[in-house]
Amino acid sequence: MRLKNLFLLILLTHTFILNAQQRKEIRIPDIPGYVTLKCDFHIHTVFSDGSVWPTVRVEEAWLEGLDAISITDHIEYLPHSADIIADHNRSYEIALPLAESKNIILIQGTEITRDMPPGHLNALFIKNANLLDRENVNDALREAKSQGAFIIWNHPGWKNQQPDTTLWWEEHTILRQNNLLHGIEVVNETSYYPEALIWANTKNLTIFGNSDIHSPINMQYDLIRSHRPMTLVFAKERTKSSIKEALIGHRTVIYFDNKLIGKARYLELLFFESISINNLPMNLKNQDSKSVLITNNSDIDYDLELAQPSIGFECPEKIKLKAHHSSLIELTGNSDEVNNMKNLRMVYSVTNMITEPEMALNVTFEITNR
Amino acid sequence: MRLKNLFLLILLTHTFILNAQQRKEIRIPDIPGYVTLKCDFHIHTVFSDGSVWPTVRVEEAWLEGLDAISITDHIEYLPHSADIIADHNRSYEIALPLAESKNIILIQGTEITRDMPPGHLNALFIKNANLLDRENVNDALREAKSQGAFIIWNHPGWKNQQPDTTLWWEEHTILRQNNLLHGIEVVNETSYYPEALIWANTKNLTIFGNSDIHSPINMQYDLIRSHRPMTLVFAKERTKSSIKEALIGHRTVIYFDNKLIGKARYLELLFFESISINNLPMNLKNQDSKSVLITNNSDIDYDLELAQPSIGFECPEKIKLKAHHSSLIELTGNSDEVNNMKNLRMVYSVTNMITEPEMALNVTFEITNR
Amino acid sequence: MRLKNLFLLILLTHTFILNAQQRKEIRIPDIPGYVTLKCDFHIHTVFSDGSVWPTVRVEEAWLEGLDAISITDHIEYLPHSADIIADHNRSYEIALPLAESKNIILIQGTEITRDMPPGHLNALFIKNANLLDRENVNDALREAKSQGAFIIWNHPGWKNQQPDTTLWWEEHTILRQNNLLHGIEVVNETSYYPEALIWANTKNLTIFGNSDIHSPINMQYDLIRSHRPMTLVFAKERTKSSIKEALIGHRTVIYFDNKLIGKARYLELLFFESISINNLPMNLKNQDSKSVLITNNSDIDYDLELAQPSIGFECPEKIKLKAHHSSLIELTGNSDEVNNMKNLRMVYSVTNMITEPEMALNVTFEITNR
Amino acid sequence: MRLKNLFLLILLTHTFILNAQQRKEIRIPDIPGYVTLKCDFHIHTVFSDGSVWPTVRVEEAWLEGLDAISITDHIEYLPHSADIIADHNRSYEIALPLAESKNIILIQGTEITRDMPPGHLNALFIKNANLLDRENVNDALREAKSQGAFIIWNHPGWKNQQPDTTLWWEEHTILRQNNLLHGIEVVNETSYYPEALIWANTKNLTIFGNSDIHSPINMQYDLIRSHRPMTLVFAKERTKSSIKEALIGHRTVIYFDNKLIGKARYLELLFFESISINNLPMNLKNQDSKSVLITNNSDIDYDLELAQPSIGFECPEKIKLKAHHSSLIELTGNSDEVNNMKNLRMVYSVTNMITEPEMALNVTFEITNR
Repeated sequence: MRLKNLFLLILLTHTFILNAQQRKEIRIPDIPGYVTLKCDFHIHTVFSDGSVWPTVRVEEAWLEGLDAISITDHIEYLPHSADIIADHNRSYEIALPLAESKNIILIQGTEITRDMPPGHLNALFIKNANLLDRENVNDALREAKSQGAFIIWNHPGWKNQQPDTTLWWEEHTILRQNNLLHGIEVVNETSYYPEALIWANTKNLTIFGNSDIHSPINMQYDLIRSHRPMTLVFAKERTKSSIKEALIGHRTVIYFDNKLIGKARYLELLFFESISINNLPMNLKNQDSKSVLITNNSDIDYDLELAQPSIGFECPEKIKLKAHHSSLIELTGNSDEVNNMKNLRMVYSVTNMITEPEMALNVTFEITNR
Repeated sequence: MRLKNLFLLILLTHTFILNAQQRKEIRIPDIPGYVTLKCDFHIHTVFSDGSVWPTVRVEEAWLEGLDAISITDHIEYLPHSADIIADHNRSYEIALPLAESKNIILIQGTEITRDMPPGHLNALFIKNANLLDRENVNDALREAKSQGAFIIWNHPGWKNQQPDTTLWWEEHTILRQNNLLHGIEVVNETSYYPEALIWANTKNLTIFGNSDIHSPINMQYDLIRSHRPMTLVFAKERTKSSIKEALIGHRTVIYFDNKLIGKARYLELLFFESISINNLPMNLKNQDSKSVLITNNSDIDYDLELAQPSIGFECPEKIKLKAHHSSLIELTGNSDEVNNMKNLRMVYSVTNMITEPEMALNVTFEITNR
Repeated sequence: MRLKNLFLLILLTHTFILNAQQRKEIRIPDIPGYVTLKCDFHIHTVFSDGSVWPTVRVEEAWLEGLDAISITDHIEYLPHSADIIADHNRSYEIALPLAESKNIILIQGTEITRDMPPGHLNALFIKNANLLDRENVNDALREAKSQGAFIIWNHPGWKNQQPDTTLWWEEHTILRQNNLLHGIEVVNETSYYPEALIWANTKNLTIFGNSDIHSPINMQYDLIRSHRPMTLVFAKERTKSSIKEALIGHRTVIYFDNKLIGKARYLELLFFESISINNLPMNLKNQDSKSVLITNNSDIDYDLELAQPSIGFECPEKIKLKAHHSSLIELTGNSDEVNNMKNLRMVYSVTNMITEPEMALNVTFEITNR
Repeated sequence: MRLKNLFLLILLTHTFILNAQQRKEIRIPDIPGYVTLKCDFHIHTVFSDGSVWPTVRVEEAWLEGLDAISITDHIEYLPHSADIIADHNRSYEIALPLAESKNIILIQGTEITRDMPPGHLNALFIKNANLLDRENVNDALREAKSQGAFIIWNHPGWKNQQPDTTLWWEEHTILRQNNLLHGIEVVNETSYYPEALIWANTKNLTIFGNSDIHSPINMQYDLIRSHRPMTLVFAKERTKSSIKEALIGHRTVIYFDNKLIGKARYLELLFFESISINNLPMNLKNQDSKSVLITNNSDIDYDLELAQPSIGFECPEKIKLKAHHSSLIELTGNSDEVNNMKNLRMVYSVTNMITEPEMALNVTFEITNR
């Protein structure tokens, strides 16, 4: 059968075959006084043991909606060195022009890669990675510090280095004392280290969640239903120096598989900036029911569990606030007390916002009654 | 709020974040006498102008359900040569061990990369790509031939080389006469060249649809809703030598964005091996209606349009046979003639099976009546 | 094998099986002075020839993010009357309490169902549908008018009533003259009637796109990748009376399968309220390239085609602004003229915003240079 | 801008807006000697407390790939009786013609709806539901039995009737003794009752998993990522009488949110009919690694955990066999013993195949070595 125009046109449009070359905007709100930057500070390329060219890392970051990345190829582990002849600054140099044209903030970094202790450490904001190629790890770290580096202990609970336990070593205490250690990965790739969260809280380290991606990002993470682990940075502005200032100021939260990990004050701000509450004229009486509509304008699904019995009325045991959806929350007066309450108070635990191991953020809703 | 066990366990399972590391089986049927192998004969890596390490190409092919690939890095175009020092066989050597462990057939190949004419040509089944690095393209092709190469003209209608028209050059006639040209890409990446389909039919060239992928495959193709372009090879068995024999025998069909392009006899076999027809006891009478259930067991959505009026009964103008779904086709007797028909005959055009430019495959259904 | 706790917990959570009972917020912006209400004014239930209980219509509307609906069961066509004994107000009465508790604006309506001319007409904002059950259609319409109805001609190009052409009848002229016809469906279910768009423009009728849904909504529309047809109403506030005032004021746009149909002034406002433009410090010179980032904050994918050659620089022929994504638009200076231009002007046609049949909206971007 | 042909054609095709009206084939294999029928024996319509017309239930079943359903409207609970005047056979009568034309097996049924004990009971394969409308529940059940009914205790752990515990009552023992109780729902809607699974095993009741759907099916179940609960029936043929024979013979398995619950012998058959094992020529030696490819041809994701240490070699602790995907399982020789083993034996627990509460099916793979 001779085909008509229609078919040929369809043949040429082939909408599906091409993957979108557009940047997905991540909807996580800013908080008062700060922009919330989406960052990944641990990334590899073919210039160490990764499997993609440095420009791919910029392209991926752009498509996924990141603001800033650091390519952190290993100094000491170069399995492709039979084929790739380049110095330690090369992956940064190759990625930089594309980062500039795409307005991705590219932070020069490298991974100092040693046996435990002290294990693997990322030096960010360096100027010349070649000078960190030193036999003694302390020499490397001091050189990094002299370049102004911010230094992170990576995957402290990595099974290859700490198969049975996750320990803080004497060497890390010394590094901390010498101002050679500033942050710690609480999340690396698909691993979460609760011990590291405790250390961060007690030893005043900045917390990080990074992808440590080696392969093309899509091979490791399901970007349709989830996202790569990332570090949310609360920066004064969207610049490299503001990011550094924020890291020094411990203003980070980890975004990991629809969970947020960090200080209660930042989590609470993120939560309340994510939602809007819309109640119909509310005049709740005993034996009466009224509804509150809560709209979640963020990309994060929030899971709430009632943390304290509400007084004067009943409210749901569990609330799911799905990303970009609204939930209707029904309140039912269960004592005469409610008839004269000006505020209806509900305290929920947001079970996917974590402040300490096994501890979730509590949030308090105050609904005006009448 | 102190979290209970439930949450921690969920935290550790994080089902979503990890992308599936499993091979998606492509459901396109074998045809009588042959296995249908899913192949991509045009692929790049960092060893020419691609952006991934060769092992990534094997991993991608495995995940997508391919049987065979050829990595065809350019001989003459090596933009990463400031950093990568390797000979022309290197990407094959690096990919081979992984291909063997994953049972992916890896065919050594290379792309001879010249101005038009003759343009870019892939030499497949070669043994030493270094010997093809010759100043004169004919020397390169003769060397390829002496190694037993199967040679393909790539993207003959590429706008960079033929901006306004798609021409067959005198040089290609000479190559064909000298047995230095055996196949042609009718589909390359997202482009379809109808002229090439005509040439293949008139000059007896084997047709190909290849990805010509440079970036990570997910960046270029939407693998959720579509698939990379590929060449279906009807081989006697799943081996490298059987593939070569099939290419020489012109036993290929192009699978491109839910369309199949090729010889009518292969398309017809693929179509009828894809579907099963299940009619209830059918005894169609005039003014009566009966249904036929057609199940499509393949990954391909078939679009059918009635190509000839049916005799004695009416049937739908259009039928959509969605992949892995069934359609109920209603037949309604419209003349007394139908009362005594032993066979109900319907001729449809499958508009996404293309035999020539603007020509779709016609298929005939014979439904037993009574 | 005895299962551990993990499994049992997973068994009890079964995240997947339950469909979300949450309202998806439709992201289509308000325009200056008005809220953009998402409305569907043509809906059926079991109380005429639909297949769901009236409460289902409210539930569906809530889940899909609609603001207002009208249930418009037929007066004259009651195929379930052997089983359902109820008057014409009943579906409204049943739906109303749920609509109130879910804050969905429910507009009482009915469909006067006659042969052509005048065909089917929806009477909205009525008070008693029973009084419209009159033998003479003009009596019915006059009764509707006396109740304050807004009257719409439904699916004017319906093939069952106008198989070969889509005509405006003398009867419609008379209805219009007698103020018994105020609006027209340009889109009904999956049909678009370009003739009706012309009539609306020339005869000053309010345009509508409605679902005319009979089955459960998911059976007819793909709510994952698309949406039901709806009428966007630009209302002063989110109330029933504001909707009526807006309909009388012709302030509607049709939202149909990712297309918007309506007056240029409303489409232009919707477009520019949907996007944000973010250019880096731009100082475009001849032979230089700079980028502009356009972010689409709406649910609508916009397709742009260059409508006029730009002066002093080149810009893309086509731009796709995918919903909730950003596109980087590259501008390249191509004459010295650009060096001193304070504004870079680009005129694009938004091909999925339709003002007249075969006519798309033109939008002009003015980018500050320097 | 005047649009060209392209746009208008696209406008008319609108591929997305229409939901597929095609039947999704459920890929769960037959087992030797039996066809595996996908059935749902607990369904409501507007003729009791459901919210859809009976034909919708047939349409839904067809689209979802079911073979048989029973509409089981309540005898004693008719909340729509102010509007719907019909006898208890009516929903069956209305649904039957469509079921026949779509080749869906429609089993007449009803739900006898009483306080606990005995609670709610479905009578299937009845002939006249009106005769079951009796004051005394035993009279109703005896009438059902006299019509040849198969009787199921529904949702035995329903919180409304058994808020704190899930008990088997003396009354149920008497019903069982009088042959007035033949089956039990172990799964109802989103609830799983482990107690009922124990009772089924000890008291020889046929097990059921049913949807108990009241709303449109899409409102309750996520049909994209999961499926409604259903009862798999192993029948000699695809007929109503074969289903009845199979129910009497206890040949059922529950399919619930990607889990299968039932007798070990049926689960094991389903598992091994679902997969194909393809190992390369295997000659595993100590310190050597070889791979086995397991392809899962079913719609069910299987989760495997090693249940016994393998002898002579190591194999993965966990295996995920994703639906329609293949997994490569690596075996590594860890003792000289393996050098001479003719069979490599692996015992895994399939954690989503449940034979008893907290007990998963063990499956044994025997891989030929050499």
